[in-house]
Amino acid sequence: MAMKQIACSAIKAVANSGSCSVLTRQLHASPGSKKIVGVFYKANEYFTKNPNFVGCVEGALGLRQWLESQGHQYIVTDDKDGPNCELDKHIPDLHVLISTPFHPAYVTAERIKKAKNLQLLLTAGIGSDHVDLKAAAEAGLTVAEITGSNVVSVAEDELMRILILVRNFLPGHHQVITGDWNVAGIAYRAYDLEGKTVGTIGAGRIGKLLLQRLKPFNCNLLYHDRLKMDPELEKEIGAKYEEDLDTMLPKCDIIVVNMPLTEKTRGMFDKDRISKLKKGVLIVNNARGAIMDTQAVADACASGHIAGYSGDVWNPQPAPKDHPWRYMPNQAMTPHISGTTIDGQLRYAAGVKDMLERYFKGEEFPVQNYIVKEGELAPQYR
Amino acid sequence: MAMKQIACSAIKAVANSGSCSVLTRQLHASPGSKKIVGVFYKANEYFTKNPNFVGCVEGALGLRQWLESQGHQYIVTDDKDGPNCELDKHIPDLHVLISTPFHPAYVTAERIKKAKNLQLLLTAGIGSDHVDLKAAAEAGLTVAEITGSNVVSVAEDELMRILILVRNFLPGHHQVITGDWNVAGIAYRAYDLEGKTVGTIGAGRIGKLLLQRLKPFNCNLLYHDRLKMDPELEKEIGAKYEEDLDTMLPKCDIIVVNMPLTEKTRGMFDKDRISKLKKGVLIVNNARGAIMDTQAVADACASGHIAGYSGDVWNPQPAPKDHPWRYMPNQAMTPHISGTTIDGQLRYAAGVKDMLERYFKGEEFPVQNYIVKEGELAPQYR
Repeated sequence: MAMKQIACSAIKAVANSGSCSVLTRQLHASPGSKKIVGVFYKANEYFTKNPNFVGCVEGALGLRQWLESQGHQYIVTDDKDGPNCELDKHIPDLHVLISTPFHPAYVTAERIKKAKNLQLLLTAGIGSDHVDLKAAAEAGLTVAEITGSNVVSVAEDELMRILILVRNFLPGHHQVITGDWNVAGIAYRAYDLEGKTVGTIGAGRIGKLLLQRLKPFNCNLLYHDRLKMDPELEKEIGAKYEEDLDTMLPKCDIIVVNMPLTEKTRGMFDKDRISKLKKGVLIVNNARGAIMDTQAVADACASGHIAGYSGDVWNPQPAPKDHPWRYMPNQAMTPHISGTTIDGQLRYAAGVKDMLERYFKGEEFPVQNYIVKEGELAPQYR
Repeated sequence: MAMKQIACSAIKAVANSGSCSVLTRQLHASPGSKKIVGVFYKANEYFTKNPNFVGCVEGALGLRQWLESQGHQYIVTDDKDGPNCELDKHIPDLHVLISTPFHPAYVTAERIKKAKNLQLLLTAGIGSDHVDLKAAAEAGLTVAEITGSNVVSVAEDELMRILILVRNFLPGHHQVITGDWNVAGIAYRAYDLEGKTVGTIGAGRIGKLLLQRLKPFNCNLLYHDRLKMDPELEKEIGAKYEEDLDTMLPKCDIIVVNMPLTEKTRGMFDKDRISKLKKGVLIVNNARGAIMDTQAVADACASGHIAGYSGDVWNPQPAPKDHPWRYMPNQAMTPHISGTTIDGQLRYAAGVKDMLERYFKGEEFPVQNYIVKEGELAPQYR
């Protein structure tokens, strides 16, 4: 480790001379005060309702006292978009930008160009597609996530959404609040999950946790991924590998999306691909909204080809008032929430603190946390 | 079996002489046409939307052709309450009454007294508390359920409701349909299920299936029941036995009710018992509404002592428009639906056909299906 740091310092010395563009802005903090900016959602009146509510602007991940006691400057805001927003005021001189997928600071190539001191972009959660990763790599920035911090949260949420769609929960609840009682109006399209075919696209950390939780439901479980699981684990989970995505999809009664948003996955569920799915398919997507063609999903829900769509991710976020997914039939959508439960917040706040400590000390991050490192993107984003 | 039938016939011969009131009306069908009445919910426009929708008046459990081809009369209706309802017209001369918990025909002592030909009461589903079981036993009627037909349906539904409450799904969905986006307003009281203490009151067929499905969620699982499970099964399920109910309840973050409604369980969650639960407890009740004191639950939801209440059972059913559970905060209620999914309907329709076939042939039912037999109530109803 010591040897490695010396080597790194040597590279940095060269890099700082400007001779190597991808290494101009190295990860390891130079001594002295840093300016750290956090972009989170605002809690307002909800902040005081729970002492563990650290994931909001007011909670500031519980880092303020610690950072300020060490002489660092810590700015937090939810004002992240549009001309003269608070975030843009700090772009020219911030060293570290922390954001979340729930209220993402969109770190464009333009912002990166203006951020002369920027070294580190931290995602408090999972999924760093709000950052232009190619531009970040070219600028020599480090992008890292708190991998694992809320995978359980998201997997649980996916299983909830599967059940809500299969069992036709929402029309029943709607009857209760409107004073109705019409069991037939729910039952004619309510099913058990047992015996149905569920396929996950992506069986990384979240996909595996979902499959493990699905196992006692006695479904037919399928998964597509770049990599086939270890046979031992595959047997334990009870899921069958499908090498070809478009061979798997038409077999599925329920499809769950568990991939990052990349140039390859952007808009992959378009009109054409949706038309090849089973009529009456249910889709759960807690990954990213832009993996879907927004209008194609809305049209297929209207026609009934998709019998139910649920997820917490939208394109863009916050979703505008006129986003078509708010109005399409058989949707069970929420704002982006699954990874920001109180339990998830406490875990990703602890993870951010750990990463900042390592950054200040010039230590490496856990290897699985790197999304961009020394000009290279993590495999899932290539 | 042959010996047993002969013995039964002998008892019947005595019984039919009127010398023994509890055996005056025996189960085994005498030869000839029977009048069978089915009380189900009406589907109206929903009937034609699904060819497997057999659980409604129009679907009539798919039994009409079969029954009529054998010379039996088969009346189906949803008109079950109030003076001059359709059901009451048939009470004096029906032989078999089939009903469901979803739209229950309330078989009171008064109706039993008027039903001179009645021999068999079948519940298409689970839970026969809509029948005055004591009066049925005294009149020598047989009451039987399709035990097992929808236990998976109900267990899945319970897990869905646990997740909906723990993860605070409904306020998020409400934001979507009202055009809002306020992650904080959901997140401040959204949690993961992992690590929480879940206790089921009752670990019969449904309770066990729920515990099995909960196992991969890494919760602290507790159960209270009349009987401790086989140590092997207990270990496999990973739940701890709690002999004393009131010792278990205050430990639980989430309580699930999985008991039949009996004179012992009626109103058992009253103001006093609720006051001893953990503040912020979540309750799921797909068993029977009358196990709760209706107003005590509504008051505890209003005060926040109960942080969420979800279930599909009400007292009475259909729930009137002014039922307080429709209006209490943090409810995730639906009409009575969990056991009447399309899959559940197909199973209990097949079960009813099997039971009628046995009844016509004078054969015994599967032993676990009996609720009242030869003047005796099944153990769970004693």
